[in-house]
Amino acid sequence: MTDNRGTTPLERLAARIGRLGAPLCVGIDPHPQALPAGLPPTAQGIERFARGLAEATVPEAAAVKINVAFFEAFGSAGLAALERLRDDLPRDLFLILDAKRGDIGSTAERQAAALFGHLEADAVTVSPYLGEDAIEPFLSYPNRVAYVLTRTSNPSGAMMQDLRVDGEPLYLAVARWAAGRWPDGRVGLVVGATAPAELRRVRETVPGPGFLVPGVGAQGGNLETALRTCHGRAAPGVVAVSRAIAGASRGDDWAIAARLAAERMRGEMRAVGATLGA
Amino acid sequence: MTDNRGTTPLERLAARIGRLGAPLCVGIDPHPQALPAGLPPTAQGIERFARGLAEATVPEAAAVKINVAFFEAFGSAGLAALERLRDDLPRDLFLILDAKRGDIGSTAERQAAALFGHLEADAVTVSPYLGEDAIEPFLSYPNRVAYVLTRTSNPSGAMMQDLRVDGEPLYLAVARWAAGRWPDGRVGLVVGATAPAELRRVRETVPGPGFLVPGVGAQGGNLETALRTCHGRAAPGVVAVSRAIAGASRGDDWAIAARLAAERMRGEMRAVGATLGA
Repeated sequence: MTDNRGTTPLERLAARIGRLGAPLCVGIDPHPQALPAGLPPTAQGIERFARGLAEATVPEAAAVKINVAFFEAFGSAGLAALERLRDDLPRDLFLILDAKRGDIGSTAERQAAALFGHLEADAVTVSPYLGEDAIEPFLSYPNRVAYVLTRTSNPSGAMMQDLRVDGEPLYLAVARWAAGRWPDGRVGLVVGATAPAELRRVRETVPGPGFLVPGVGAQGGNLETALRTCHGRAAPGVVAVSRAIAGASRGDDWAIAARLAAERMRGEMRAVGATLGA
Repeated sequence: MTDNRGTTPLERLAARIGRLGAPLCVGIDPHPQALPAGLPPTAQGIERFARGLAEATVPEAAAVKINVAFFEAFGSAGLAALERLRDDLPRDLFLILDAKRGDIGSTAERQAAALFGHLEADAVTVSPYLGEDAIEPFLSYPNRVAYVLTRTSNPSGAMMQDLRVDGEPLYLAVARWAAGRWPDGRVGLVVGATAPAELRRVRETVPGPGFLVPGVGAQGGNLETALRTCHGRAAPGVVAVSRAIAGASRGDDWAIAARLAAERMRGEMRAVGATLGA
């Protein structure tokens, strides 16, 4: 996005991280079975929850990561809710649409049209499995960012990603390939905080790309490792926290509880960050 | 889908292939820049084209594969068009929603809700990169089918998929893993007709899973190889043809031209199939 302020999304992200003192990315993944009491498990319910969560936490957040599947599950009504939510997010907030896309070229172009064109995301997540021509169409949108799945935070992530390729795990081959193919910072890497050793190894292997690190909080990832890994890289990175904020309370106080959890998380991140030096 | 007729989607697919004498899967990927003259490059335009294409070709087709990105590119309006199209497709037609999904468990569950629940697909395409817990939620829908991306038809498919894992290419490791993990036929494999040697190798390595073979026609894949590969396996396979049918004419006669192209393709498939024996 060449936006009105003449800055790129990554410049805005870096500025926001600097101002807040923390690379907190609030994850919005509204599962209909995990809504606060009183909200119905419908498109309306997830919309109210997602909007309330965004309003409550955006002041603490350098970025917001919305997982589109939670809206797509309700079809066009869900997608309309996502469109309204997107319209009301502040434009200087770095918006990651977590969709894990990637397809043959002409299809990837339409995926990019959906996420970057129609929904005006700053960044998306993409799969490496189809190689570079499944990712290139996303980069035809100037200055937008694509985060390539590298080492994911789910229990079976290791199953494929740790397969040995020429003596090293596949995830490292993916990291090396993405960093070498697109060295300009617009391609980042998704590496879960639940795999701290792998996170460090990716950090050491490829110094350039920014990280999107999910898995801190409910999934059990370690905050300090996540921050240490993002720190001091060429491109800014973010640490995504979802359930620990969104699920802070399921009572009537859910919005204020989420805000307090985000404040607390940002405070922890600042404190840890201070120990890492400039 | 445990449908009214007491048959599973794969049973219906096999019956339809038998009746038509060909495993033709018509691909519907309506790109706004490739619509026939007179149709606008809007959600309305792609809806009219996709519906016309489906109406014209369904009598010749064992299955239809719709790539959801072409609808998602228009946001909620595009998805509403897909919902209307889906509602009007015959229920005995095997519907593959080509979406290339897969995510951590709770998100994959919502992806499955979107495609199997809301849109009532019979089958979807999924990526292997996140391992088995990104695929399992799709299989919680009884009798529905998930096709795992194995060796894709795009030019850069080889980049990741041919990486050597323990002396064999990654795509073969994926095929072996998927066939071993889910031997019941509900997990099939996507292998492009543009990679005939790889297609044969997958066939020889894993005898069980059904194939979804794209890439015949405009992408240059060989029909005979595709049919030979699908023939005589435990689970029925389909050969997907997109542009060679959808783009048969861009004039006013596009619907009839698509129908004739589908008839011709089905005829060719029957003729080749007859040489393969029962």
